[in-house]
Amino acid sequence: MLNSTDLRINAERLWQDFQALSLIGATVDGQGVHRPALGPAHLEARRWFAQRVQHSGLELRIDSAGNHSGRLECAPAGAPTLLLGSHLDSVPNGGRYDGALGVLAALEVLRVVQKAGLRLPYHLEAIDFTDEEGTLVGLLGSAAFAGALNVEELRSPRGGREMLEAGLARAGLTEDGLLQAVRDPRTLAGYLELHIEQGPRLLNAGVSIGVVSAIVGICSYKVEFMGRADHAGTTPMQVRRDAGLGASAFSLAVRRVVMEQFPDCVANIGQLAYTPGAYNIVPERASLALELRAPEADSFARLEAALLEQARLAAQEHGLGLETHFLGLHQPTPMSPVAQRAIARAAAELGLSAMPLVSGAGHDAQSLAAICPAGMLFIPSQGGASHSPREFSLWEDCVNGANVLLQAATGYAKK
Amino acid sequence: MLNSTDLRINAERLWQDFQALSLIGATVDGQGVHRPALGPAHLEARRWFAQRVQHSGLELRIDSAGNHSGRLECAPAGAPTLLLGSHLDSVPNGGRYDGALGVLAALEVLRVVQKAGLRLPYHLEAIDFTDEEGTLVGLLGSAAFAGALNVEELRSPRGGREMLEAGLARAGLTEDGLLQAVRDPRTLAGYLELHIEQGPRLLNAGVSIGVVSAIVGICSYKVEFMGRADHAGTTPMQVRRDAGLGASAFSLAVRRVVMEQFPDCVANIGQLAYTPGAYNIVPERASLALELRAPEADSFARLEAALLEQARLAAQEHGLGLETHFLGLHQPTPMSPVAQRAIARAAAELGLSAMPLVSGAGHDAQSLAAICPAGMLFIPSQGGASHSPREFSLWEDCVNGANVLLQAATGYAKK
Repeated sequence: MLNSTDLRINAERLWQDFQALSLIGATVDGQGVHRPALGPAHLEARRWFAQRVQHSGLELRIDSAGNHSGRLECAPAGAPTLLLGSHLDSVPNGGRYDGALGVLAALEVLRVVQKAGLRLPYHLEAIDFTDEEGTLVGLLGSAAFAGALNVEELRSPRGGREMLEAGLARAGLTEDGLLQAVRDPRTLAGYLELHIEQGPRLLNAGVSIGVVSAIVGICSYKVEFMGRADHAGTTPMQVRRDAGLGASAFSLAVRRVVMEQFPDCVANIGQLAYTPGAYNIVPERASLALELRAPEADSFARLEAALLEQARLAAQEHGLGLETHFLGLHQPTPMSPVAQRAIARAAAELGLSAMPLVSGAGHDAQSLAAICPAGMLFIPSQGGASHSPREFSLWEDCVNGANVLLQAATGYAKK
Repeated sequence: MLNSTDLRINAERLWQDFQALSLIGATVDGQGVHRPALGPAHLEARRWFAQRVQHSGLELRIDSAGNHSGRLECAPAGAPTLLLGSHLDSVPNGGRYDGALGVLAALEVLRVVQKAGLRLPYHLEAIDFTDEEGTLVGLLGSAAFAGALNVEELRSPRGGREMLEAGLARAGLTEDGLLQAVRDPRTLAGYLELHIEQGPRLLNAGVSIGVVSAIVGICSYKVEFMGRADHAGTTPMQVRRDAGLGASAFSLAVRRVVMEQFPDCVANIGQLAYTPGAYNIVPERASLALELRAPEADSFARLEAALLEQARLAAQEHGLGLETHFLGLHQPTPMSPVAQRAIARAAAELGLSAMPLVSGAGHDAQSLAAICPAGMLFIPSQGGASHSPREFSLWEDCVNGANVLLQAATGYAKK
């Protein structure tokens, strides 16, 4: 009888797929891809994926949120489905691995199981979720799938209404369809996702596989310091109320407080703008984008309070007004112990080193964790670049990850 | 015989003019004016001025740089001309006083001298210079007038080529005309300009008239800190190279160094932008606009060196690259001792308190100082707002300033 632990993915076939997909929306430098969700290149990538699914003799499914999947019936009728997947969209000028690797590996797992004629206690489905990266909304397809999509999010989406409407029109989707794409959780056995780490921890530790223990919570604020617009030549330094000084003091304090008091958290100030924004006018308003991430609800709340206190202190020190606008929150999401065990066991069986890791980035697994046991595995990223054409992982690591996904999927029901 | 020291301006007539001019390009709030150079409102203001000149029986002159003037022949043929003036253009959404008061007071001085039939050793000319504020180039009309206009400045003007070309076309001007608008310095006796202070020093000192001793030098740089764009969730704080931290440390250092070591200087960081500028990406590049001003060439050079050194230290501290781009320089401009004496004497004769002041803002008098004795007098600004509809001066102070201008102009040749 066939022993499923002897199965391996077809690395050459996966490589061919990876190369073909990388050409779709390839950036000018040839290193990355530009496939923002529901844009022309992303839709082309989905057509290509649909053809690969059908060419492999799998059942093609496209739900009303545009989520594309290839399905393999490999269990008794009425058995639940184990989902494997990720996303085919990219950030603008992104990398070839982020999302794409997870979808292609999922498809490859199904082909291997299909060819081996393996019977499992669950069906398998390789799924590509819509707009993971947030060109439009962020985790859009997986939230719709999990029944967590919010009408308000669609009303004022991250990328703007116009972009969302144009994207849906291009893809032949509708808002009603998005809201109706809910999959019945009782039909799901779980969700597994292979992804690149997008950070240096596996590489620095010399470890092959990261078993994701949790996905960080993310919270974002617009923080605004308000001073007074004065003529920069005629107003003595002593009497100025320069909003830029509040933003500067706060930026330095954020880094200091996170590093000293919250070593497992991160924070970023990724945007900063001065108003009115002229060489010869003292900034009246400094508006900055603050994002903070923490692996647990407790440290999340303490980090948030500590940073808002730093904003208050910076405003006070420089005689400025302060406004903080809460923009949104994803709570930290623990990964399923069942999924973590399946991934760790698969790595061990393949002789690959593994370590638990918190994911600092958001992923579709967050949405899925609310409705079924969800898990993720990471492979090492080289050079530290992410969301960039310079994003790179060794092909050997990609193959290892796909094999761990295969073993975790086929061995998922093991005790 | 008429004693010129008994002459006073007609405050009611000046008030009518001031009210009428304030309606041209009035801002929505009714407090300010929006008259960017060679825009529709500015051109309308110039037509209005031309009519007032002609209605007053003065000679209207419009040179090939668009400078408008009213001229009073009140001296023997071949005598030189004492210019009085300022500018009718404003910054976008600016105030009613900046520039306008100086032009209207100049016109009023000519009308008073004309009505009195006063004979002077020089002719008088009330002049409105084109684009003082720099919507297009900055000090454009006065630089053209002084023969200091630079072909390079016209090639890449501060407001962009398109804006310059459109403005010239609207006004019926040409670049050749700008370059040919030079006035022969031998025909000039001097230049006097009345202006609001745009700062709080006269108000704080309780003094009516500022006798400008020098116009500060202005130097500007684009300063760029270069780090690395990393994923803000997956990159540990310790390994980031966040360009925003360099900009923040530099911003705080600029204020500290200027206040501690250069008490007679000012510096401003009025623009700051992060690239790529996303919530979830560590800033790769922080680009800021640095402007510094000093009253003397010596402190100017030391200030510049000290601030560039601070930029270097901030970059070093945060592991960043640094690029500094020199954008332009106006050397500090001392005002003519003759003009300063004439203004101080006029204030004393009128029983008004006066004090010497350095102008922290640039003015057309800078251009004129290169070709003739030039002087400026300031009146107090209330509330500290400048380049804003909230700009405000007491009418009593405006009348005082106009009378000092009248006395300084008529008494300019006194020993």
